[in-house]
Amino acid sequence: MTDLPSHVTIRDVSMRDGLQIEAPIPLSAKLELLAAVAATGVREMEATAFVSPSKVPALADAPDLAAELHRFGDIEFSALVASPNGAKRAIAAGLRSIEYVVSAADGHSRANVGRTSAEATAQISDIVGIAHGSGTTVEVIVATAWDCPFDGPTPVRRVLDIVAAATDAGVDRLALADTIGTATPRRVTDLIEAVRPEIGPAPLGAHFHNTRGAGLASAYAAVSAGVTRLDASVGGLGGCPFAPGASGNIATEDLVYLLRDSGIGVDVDLEAAIAAARVAQQAVGHDLPGALLRAGDRIPG
Amino acid sequence: MTDLPSHVTIRDVSMRDGLQIEAPIPLSAKLELLAAVAATGVREMEATAFVSPSKVPALADAPDLAAELHRFGDIEFSALVASPNGAKRAIAAGLRSIEYVVSAADGHSRANVGRTSAEATAQISDIVGIAHGSGTTVEVIVATAWDCPFDGPTPVRRVLDIVAAATDAGVDRLALADTIGTATPRRVTDLIEAVRPEIGPAPLGAHFHNTRGAGLASAYAAVSAGVTRLDASVGGLGGCPFAPGASGNIATEDLVYLLRDSGIGVDVDLEAAIAAARVAQQAVGHDLPGALLRAGDRIPG
Repeated sequence: MTDLPSHVTIRDVSMRDGLQIEAPIPLSAKLELLAAVAATGVREMEATAFVSPSKVPALADAPDLAAELHRFGDIEFSALVASPNGAKRAIAAGLRSIEYVVSAADGHSRANVGRTSAEATAQISDIVGIAHGSGTTVEVIVATAWDCPFDGPTPVRRVLDIVAAATDAGVDRLALADTIGTATPRRVTDLIEAVRPEIGPAPLGAHFHNTRGAGLASAYAAVSAGVTRLDASVGGLGGCPFAPGASGNIATEDLVYLLRDSGIGVDVDLEAAIAAARVAQQAVGHDLPGALLRAGDRIPG
Repeated sequence: MTDLPSHVTIRDVSMRDGLQIEAPIPLSAKLELLAAVAATGVREMEATAFVSPSKVPALADAPDLAAELHRFGDIEFSALVASPNGAKRAIAAGLRSIEYVVSAADGHSRANVGRTSAEATAQISDIVGIAHGSGTTVEVIVATAWDCPFDGPTPVRRVLDIVAAATDAGVDRLALADTIGTATPRRVTDLIEAVRPEIGPAPLGAHFHNTRGAGLASAYAAVSAGVTRLDASVGGLGGCPFAPGASGNIATEDLVYLLRDSGIGVDVDLEAAIAAARVAQQAVGHDLPGALLRAGDRIPG
């Protein structure tokens, strides 16, 4: 394990992936949660999504939320988009970092955005053009990179096609998303080893859900294979409304615990992340699955 | 990851570690659970413990349970013991495989068995003598191998001292136990790399709790580092009554899922393990934390 990175960037996605499946909560509660997550020291947060308000009512307040982000000047905020129009809306709202999500599987792509994977891939260059024209960075997230709830296992070729289109278009970052929480470490290693030679200098991130208990195992495998960016949400908040059976993201505080004890530097304070997870529980009104919420830190040393 | 083993032996510990912290359940309910676990195809089960009935009332029926094990002829049953007297009782009850647990940390050792780690270690050779004299195999389990709830991180030297005594005494197998669920993959790798050169030909196992969400990550790290035996309980049943904050073992079915998708052979059928986890939930009368209990298998392929 001598190839572990010295630092991993945790992007907290509580505000987007964490909240999108929940019943809408007031902007004031969102801002309380945002402040609690910001207090962890995290450097990057996915703040919201500019997608159909009717499909994701929990994030319909994206422009209003975006207008408040200037209060937290030290953090790089981003928004998820699913179309060129969404990219334009995000940029108009002041975002300077966007994630464009492209499903590698047609079943999920159609359910999620009403287009095939190839149709969504074809829009990458448009979105990069729109974003870069305004000084906005673009990450392409390959959704259902391992499995699709409708189509089953995703052929590696489908992932590589998106990666090639994204690299050709000059995206700033790439990420592989285990949208429905089925990945396991060996399959993570295999896919990352197939993708890494194709992406050039763009940083590679990964996004896991803990649906089948292997989220942290997959995250550690990803880091061991060269990934330096991981998404997580406090308390393990979240899920994907269009992926049957999906449950929460890996919990920020559980990930921090694992990475810290692996000698990997992170920007997020563990106790502050646990405190933010408690705020998240209050905001959504139910228990969250994060383990450290119950167990706390070990006796350090 | 080319060093992954082709097969890992899962020992199901539902009946012992799984039940010991629960309120006592009738022998008939135990036998239903045992039958459900046996139906998974598992080759080894830790059936009970021969310890103080007043300290572990849930396992006070150990002799009665042992008398029923002949019904399940294909499975190697074992019992945990904490003293030479316990070993004698287990053997008298018909067991031909015992685990002797020795805490590497004095704090946990005193709380668990009222002796220091060195005092417990000194009894290994007695127990091996008693066991081998009757054709019974002995595994030494090093408890609190990573951390103690009272003493904090366990110095590697303390683990190696137990390993040396066990190897000198001619034990048949060794295992490292993350008694309070604090281990993380890098620390697992480090300890196993320190222990492996010291154990000779005895197979090395590992035992993890998912208290801080890293149980499966630690199990995969252990397997990647040469461990070929893992303990698990259906549904993630279990915990240690003398270790504050401890929660369930890693779930058998979640482990099977991860190992199967890593190309590692196991004896346990996934769907049968999920069914056994449901039986376990009924037996103890509350939900269990196993992930596949909720999410089920992915679409295979």
